[in-house]
Amino acid sequence: MRVVVVGGVAGGMSAAARLRRRDETAQIIVLERGSYVSFANCGLPYYVSGEIADPAKLLLHTPQSLKAALNLDVRINSEVTGIDSGEHCVKVASTDTGETYTLSYDHLILSPGAFANRPPIEGLDSPRVRTLRTVDDALALRQAPGARAVVLGAGFVGVEAAEALACRGLETHLVEFADHVLPPLEVEMATLVTEELRNLGIQVHAGVAARTIARGEECDSVTLSDGTVLHADVIVLSTGVRPDTAFVEAAGIETSRGYILIDRQGHTSADNIYAIGDGTIGPDEERPVTLAGPANRGGRLIADAIADREHGTDTARRIPKPQGTAIVRVGTRTAAMTGANRATLDAAGIEYFTVHTHANQHAGYFPGAQPVHILMHVGVDGEILGAQAVGVDGVDRRIDVIATAMRARLKAADLIDLDLAYSPPYGQAKDPVNQTGMVAHNVLTGELALTSPSELTEDTPVLDVRSAAEYAAGHMRKSLNIPHTELRDRLDEVRAWVDEEVGDRPFVVMCAAGVRSWIGYRIVRAAGFNVTMLSGGIQSLRAWLGDRSGAVLVKG
Amino acid sequence: MRVVVVGGVAGGMSAAARLRRRDETAQIIVLERGSYVSFANCGLPYYVSGEIADPAKLLLHTPQSLKAALNLDVRINSEVTGIDSGEHCVKVASTDTGETYTLSYDHLILSPGAFANRPPIEGLDSPRVRTLRTVDDALALRQAPGARAVVLGAGFVGVEAAEALACRGLETHLVEFADHVLPPLEVEMATLVTEELRNLGIQVHAGVAARTIARGEECDSVTLSDGTVLHADVIVLSTGVRPDTAFVEAAGIETSRGYILIDRQGHTSADNIYAIGDGTIGPDEERPVTLAGPANRGGRLIADAIADREHGTDTARRIPKPQGTAIVRVGTRTAAMTGANRATLDAAGIEYFTVHTHANQHAGYFPGAQPVHILMHVGVDGEILGAQAVGVDGVDRRIDVIATAMRARLKAADLIDLDLAYSPPYGQAKDPVNQTGMVAHNVLTGELALTSPSELTEDTPVLDVRSAAEYAAGHMRKSLNIPHTELRDRLDEVRAWVDEEVGDRPFVVMCAAGVRSWIGYRIVRAAGFNVTMLSGGIQSLRAWLGDRSGAVLVKG
Repeated sequence: MRVVVVGGVAGGMSAAARLRRRDETAQIIVLERGSYVSFANCGLPYYVSGEIADPAKLLLHTPQSLKAALNLDVRINSEVTGIDSGEHCVKVASTDTGETYTLSYDHLILSPGAFANRPPIEGLDSPRVRTLRTVDDALALRQAPGARAVVLGAGFVGVEAAEALACRGLETHLVEFADHVLPPLEVEMATLVTEELRNLGIQVHAGVAARTIARGEECDSVTLSDGTVLHADVIVLSTGVRPDTAFVEAAGIETSRGYILIDRQGHTSADNIYAIGDGTIGPDEERPVTLAGPANRGGRLIADAIADREHGTDTARRIPKPQGTAIVRVGTRTAAMTGANRATLDAAGIEYFTVHTHANQHAGYFPGAQPVHILMHVGVDGEILGAQAVGVDGVDRRIDVIATAMRARLKAADLIDLDLAYSPPYGQAKDPVNQTGMVAHNVLTGELALTSPSELTEDTPVLDVRSAAEYAAGHMRKSLNIPHTELRDRLDEVRAWVDEEVGDRPFVVMCAAGVRSWIGYRIVRAAGFNVTMLSGGIQSLRAWLGDRSGAVLVKG
Repeated sequence: MRVVVVGGVAGGMSAAARLRRRDETAQIIVLERGSYVSFANCGLPYYVSGEIADPAKLLLHTPQSLKAALNLDVRINSEVTGIDSGEHCVKVASTDTGETYTLSYDHLILSPGAFANRPPIEGLDSPRVRTLRTVDDALALRQAPGARAVVLGAGFVGVEAAEALACRGLETHLVEFADHVLPPLEVEMATLVTEELRNLGIQVHAGVAARTIARGEECDSVTLSDGTVLHADVIVLSTGVRPDTAFVEAAGIETSRGYILIDRQGHTSADNIYAIGDGTIGPDEERPVTLAGPANRGGRLIADAIADREHGTDTARRIPKPQGTAIVRVGTRTAAMTGANRATLDAAGIEYFTVHTHANQHAGYFPGAQPVHILMHVGVDGEILGAQAVGVDGVDRRIDVIATAMRARLKAADLIDLDLAYSPPYGQAKDPVNQTGMVAHNVLTGELALTSPSELTEDTPVLDVRSAAEYAAGHMRKSLNIPHTELRDRLDEVRAWVDEEVGDRPFVVMCAAGVRSWIGYRIVRAAGFNVTMLSGGIQSLRAWLGDRSGAVLVKG
């Protein structure tokens, strides 16, 4: 049996390595267009910053090491230019010598990956414009001369690249077309990332696009859609990727918007041809998931599918629809997400509500306690639809727990009972995830009605149950301040305020993070008032407002 | 409605706080025998060490703060001496004044907690013997005079207490009757904890018991069952707990070995009486789970059950059987566990196998990569029965993910596909949990046969596929060393070795951590040899052997 693998990084290399373990005698040939295989593509920004000092660290394997350990025939600088799916062969061209040859296969695994997207920006072909996709890109960026950088696109790679360049001392501008950095994050999460980017000295330009890049002698000039002109010695293009699949489409293999269509075991529309990674899209997926985890795990699965077919076994699993779990470090903070966000849910017409919590990652009395800001979207029947978290510590853990719960189709209220690891340095007896489930449970049982920060207007009447000092530091314009500990004795004041200023409308009970307002909400609701509670308190509201906070919130 | 809560910490206080949120008008009276309510019992060791500097941090609430926020009637120094379940009233005695009174209830919640166990050690009544259960205990231990400490019992609290005392500069001995510290851990995990305790300067005495404590003028002398005599200025008793439920048994409420029997909503055998926490045991539980998480979550649930009954709603959940997820910090390491261990599985006659992995917590090329040592017990149908982990970083997260998977009844192979958060500072494209699932999957599909470190004897023939240098640093006596990269070319040597020394027996392929041996195993198995692979490699073997490593492993 001969298996040809196209693409020697992530999914392709996982498939090859697994296949060898399943089949000692198969001939396995890996064709890689670039000069490196199995390199650390997710590690490139950390080499640019210098955090990974040695470039050798980026090269996980060489053709030689893969030959020795796994008896793989790895051919670098080898581009597949055509597939003949009828004849079961591929055409290979050496990018070194230009020589071509034909290679037959019994099974073909396509892991072609993706190119950097090239948006219609005039002057994008300037030599000062670089991407960050390959080892050579990273080597070049680490040595890029000059003191001013502009990063176009604030997705994961853009944010990592901006931090890396700022970390190297460059004056760094980060430009994002969407309203906020890391567009898949909700705005009240992304604000916390923007804050941290600014702490790192990065200038964030959101809601604008680069229009032109003018080459200059000393530097390029990037003109943004709002008229801003940024001078740049280096420009990093990180505005997403497009699949590298022209040769696949040409072979008549089914694609969707350029992405190879695969089933849950990686089969393409062609016999004995499998695909995996950034260049593919699974069944019922709204958009491709271009992440390392699914690619690596999918590669393993394809190898199992092939081995099963050859050996008559039945061991290969069906990879579930990816949840898009992702994480990024920004300065001292971490942002992570899993599942759907508002945009996806709204587009799909799904009914849901959103809870915001700010519980500490570990016992508040233990040194170093810091909030994990969690946002969770919950369907009306209690399904966990998506979650995001930002914080200094413990974010990865909470998103992983929720991702696991989602995969297992646990309901939001099931999070209450998860038996998670607790001792004071690590968690709380009621873990932030438990607490998030509790809030959702309160909503689902009707004990709690939430108002989201997005639903609050400057006209909304607010009962603010924080202390007088907290209130004075910033509050909504139309609000009454009664600390939660005094509320039971001052219900008359609430009644007078409602009579005079609120009328028939519901009012919103609010505190700093949603803990005291939950007590306050229950007190005034029991007293017969028409109320809701602000989800996540002023912490989530400030994050929702972002730069508008100063204008909306009143002091004194 | 009047609800009386007996015990103002953890479960009791959670129930009271939740009940107020569910019912603004209920009269809620909390009776606490001690002088403090809602104190940070899990935080006490960190106050002893000085890591928590301010004792005020240990007091989360006062009767006054609970009155103000939640309108609770909290009565400290109030001991319940009797329950009349027919008349629905309790007898209360003031531990201050000795006054007694009777209090009627509509619902009674018992959260009595537990006492420190007092094993039959002669001289245990020495004033130098202390426990670490209350705020007063912690205040006393922090100020304990002298320079020598003996901690009796190396469970969670014992280990934390020993570290706290060593951290304060005391010469500290830790005595454990079981074969190793933290008895619920498997030995190959506990060894890693023992190592770290020794790094902290703590002298560990395992497999021995304290026999007598002789009072001296300057210090006490603790004589162990092996004849060792330890001099101690302070002795900490941490040999487990027993339920504080005499007054409950006297009332005819059903108990089991002193623990109050409850159902999944906290009901006892008596009408309108509920119980929660360290003094209770649930249905079908082999042994009580005395942990803060289940107590706190259970308290909330009982409040919901009571509110539902009063309001005719149906919101209260049924708490699943606790998994006993637990975690402890020891120096720079973390040890955590969830589910069953070998002792429990063997006692229940359950068939299972065990996998050991040592994958790094994050990408190996990213600075600070360190292994998370994971052990997982898997049933023959792929059920995840229990897991343990030890490491410097990322242990809490992996145990929480596995705990969540277990709660959701995911199978071991489902761990392969979990969509966990990955970027180089946080994880691996194949997370340690994914990898642990992969090994289990290999066993379940028959691709891999494992030998556990416990099954290896000095006579077992071993094919050691590590490098020559690693081999020379320590290897099994009856072994052949061929590095995995040379194995395909040197199969003749394997054949000769088998013919001469192994015979018909299977031999075991081994490496450092189980990665290279997996390749080697597949090579020799494909060549027709009768083989197994050592689970977890020499890392798990050394940990299994513990102090015997030096004698069993040969150098050169």
